[in-house]
Amino acid sequence: MTKYKPLKEKEAIEYVKGIEGLFDDDAELSCNEIGDGNLNLVFHITDQNSGMGVVIKQALDHVRIADDWPLTKERVKFEYTAMKIQDELTDGMVPKVYKYDDEMALIVMEDLSSMKVMRKGLISGIKYPHFAEQISTFLSKTLFYTSDLYMAPKEKKERVKNFINPELCDITEVLVFTDPYFDAESNNINPELRPYLEKEFWRKSELRKEVTVLKEKFMTRAQALIHGDLHTGSIFIDQKTLKVFDTEFAFYGPSGFDIGAVIGNLILNYASWSGKEVSTEFKADYREYLLDTIEDIWNKFEEKFRKFWDQEAHETTKAVKGYQDYYLKQLLQDSIGMGGCKTMRRCIGMAHVEDLDGIENLSERARAQIFALKLGEIMVTRRKRLATITDFIKIVRDLTAWEDTTNM
Amino acid sequence: MTKYKPLKEKEAIEYVKGIEGLFDDDAELSCNEIGDGNLNLVFHITDQNSGMGVVIKQALDHVRIADDWPLTKERVKFEYTAMKIQDELTDGMVPKVYKYDDEMALIVMEDLSSMKVMRKGLISGIKYPHFAEQISTFLSKTLFYTSDLYMAPKEKKERVKNFINPELCDITEVLVFTDPYFDAESNNINPELRPYLEKEFWRKSELRKEVTVLKEKFMTRAQALIHGDLHTGSIFIDQKTLKVFDTEFAFYGPSGFDIGAVIGNLILNYASWSGKEVSTEFKADYREYLLDTIEDIWNKFEEKFRKFWDQEAHETTKAVKGYQDYYLKQLLQDSIGMGGCKTMRRCIGMAHVEDLDGIENLSERARAQIFALKLGEIMVTRRKRLATITDFIKIVRDLTAWEDTTNM
Repeated sequence: MTKYKPLKEKEAIEYVKGIEGLFDDDAELSCNEIGDGNLNLVFHITDQNSGMGVVIKQALDHVRIADDWPLTKERVKFEYTAMKIQDELTDGMVPKVYKYDDEMALIVMEDLSSMKVMRKGLISGIKYPHFAEQISTFLSKTLFYTSDLYMAPKEKKERVKNFINPELCDITEVLVFTDPYFDAESNNINPELRPYLEKEFWRKSELRKEVTVLKEKFMTRAQALIHGDLHTGSIFIDQKTLKVFDTEFAFYGPSGFDIGAVIGNLILNYASWSGKEVSTEFKADYREYLLDTIEDIWNKFEEKFRKFWDQEAHETTKAVKGYQDYYLKQLLQDSIGMGGCKTMRRCIGMAHVEDLDGIENLSERARAQIFALKLGEIMVTRRKRLATITDFIKIVRDLTAWEDTTNM
Repeated sequence: MTKYKPLKEKEAIEYVKGIEGLFDDDAELSCNEIGDGNLNLVFHITDQNSGMGVVIKQALDHVRIADDWPLTKERVKFEYTAMKIQDELTDGMVPKVYKYDDEMALIVMEDLSSMKVMRKGLISGIKYPHFAEQISTFLSKTLFYTSDLYMAPKEKKERVKNFINPELCDITEVLVFTDPYFDAESNNINPELRPYLEKEFWRKSELRKEVTVLKEKFMTRAQALIHGDLHTGSIFIDQKTLKVFDTEFAFYGPSGFDIGAVIGNLILNYASWSGKEVSTEFKADYREYLLDTIEDIWNKFEEKFRKFWDQEAHETTKAVKGYQDYYLKQLLQDSIGMGGCKTMRRCIGMAHVEDLDGIENLSERARAQIFALKLGEIMVTRRKRLATITDFIKIVRDLTAWEDTTNM
């Protein structure tokens, strides 16, 4: 029996050589470890002859998120199992898996390094005209076909059981839904932002209450098999293709959490331009692109989701007049609310995003962070008044106009 | 290894004799099988010398709820595991368990035949002055201490996993939340009621939609370890003591489902007097007692739940201003809505209650059923407007006054 041990680069090469049919016999393999080194090892292995490459993602065992916060390697099982389901449902919108090794806590998968991590593209101001079409397909297929709307109740419950993922959920519960809303140890705070947090943000009791309502939803609502961490850093993209990766947070949770993650991260990028030296024209144009994208994502998502429902929901569900409209309105409100939480945590919580932290001047960064926090706040507190995505776009525009005039 | 087989009465005696310390050596045991014979065997075993008795509840394997609807014996495991938790949390408000035998799918437990099944007491017009106090203790303790408000997130999720109970949930999903709302095969319909169903009830699309919203909540919301079938036929009661039994439907579901089951079954009894030959005074007085009881149950439940919360919820939850009020208002609305579904299914669905089916004259029975259906309907459709239990009591009174004048 193989026993778990973290691979070294040479061992990684030997490991993939042992996978039948993966590389040619005369392959000349080179290997680089390119992970962040904290939670996972990521080996990029290339055949110098053919140019073909693979990636090994191996979980480090008993790592620590913080001093008293350990994490086991079991998370790889959730990642692999969810990827398989997503792959089947979306016809390959996730990296191909060549091998999964439970014992070694690793996945050997397709090398997508020719594509860009979407967050970096957005930071560079690149537009992705097919993104809304692509991500709405991913979202609608995974969120419909893993839900009770489509699945047989017993199979769905069996799957809920297999995806009870306490360690990774715990990270989200604490870092997204709890700690950012008070002066918690785990927070990572720009000193220029702190006065705003102390004088205003942490005193918003209605906001904190509503975030807690969303937290309970996250903790209790087994609606669909969600990716669980679908920010723009979990998406590879080029002008043709989109692949979703880093799926270890997968579990049965509220569908709005995935849609919200996408929208929230577009909103973070939207806010980030407040702290950057770019022309007014560029900023206005790129922000319009981001808002159009958000509107398109929801509208295309809704259209596809309704189509799947009309064609493939259980007959007893289809027969219920008005339920589809109700469900989608709830989902819109959930998505915007969850997106608001995802937006705010990236300004205050432990894990930030480069969209904002790439702004080196701390005052400028704080300005963009405050704008992001205000956007996140209205996403949470006004979500129940939203009937359409256009309502949401309008409140973003209003807040932007207000920010432009006051310059915060 | 013992292999599963359904016991006969003599074997049941041998079985309990084998449990060390249960009966005296010179016990003279007699045994009666008193189950309904469809899903479970229930043996009542008594020592003729000491008078001491026990009950064996054994699940029949591969029984059928309907032709194409089989049920395995695994349900006993859920019953036993939930009973153990309820016992610890409520300091013995469930029957004592002497032995659990997984292989034989049976539980040997305390004989409570000296107490009355509460439904029978209510049908006889008996008042139970301590019931609200008792059941509110059971509900508040089980629903608070098994929820995320109190439990550590990982332990709670582990428990959710262990209580994934698809077979028994399926029964509720179909028989409570689906079939009664259209002309389904499984329904069991009083011919005198059918015209009302066809001309009115089954055309209520708003009602059916709202029931489906509650159904999704039942299917997805892992809020607390609920009993899952807490009607007045699952409660033994006398003037001093209350014991909750028949816990095989236990799973992590919406807390309001248990509270609603209790309230809904009191409402069923309330409605049943419309079809019975009793004096106006008796009817008015007993109905007042039932409404007072419902009001007390909620108010005492709320008081206890808030106390547990203030004393023992997670610090980060306690710190959230306004969340407790929000949570309890939601729970009230959920409870009334779920109670409405429980009320309606007993008039139309497969499994009825003696409160109504004890009315032999079918027209009289239909009158009481229609009243129950109207009560159930407003419980579902008006639940979101309720701020207090008194609001609910008021709409019951209003509908009763209207029924009295029109005589339906």
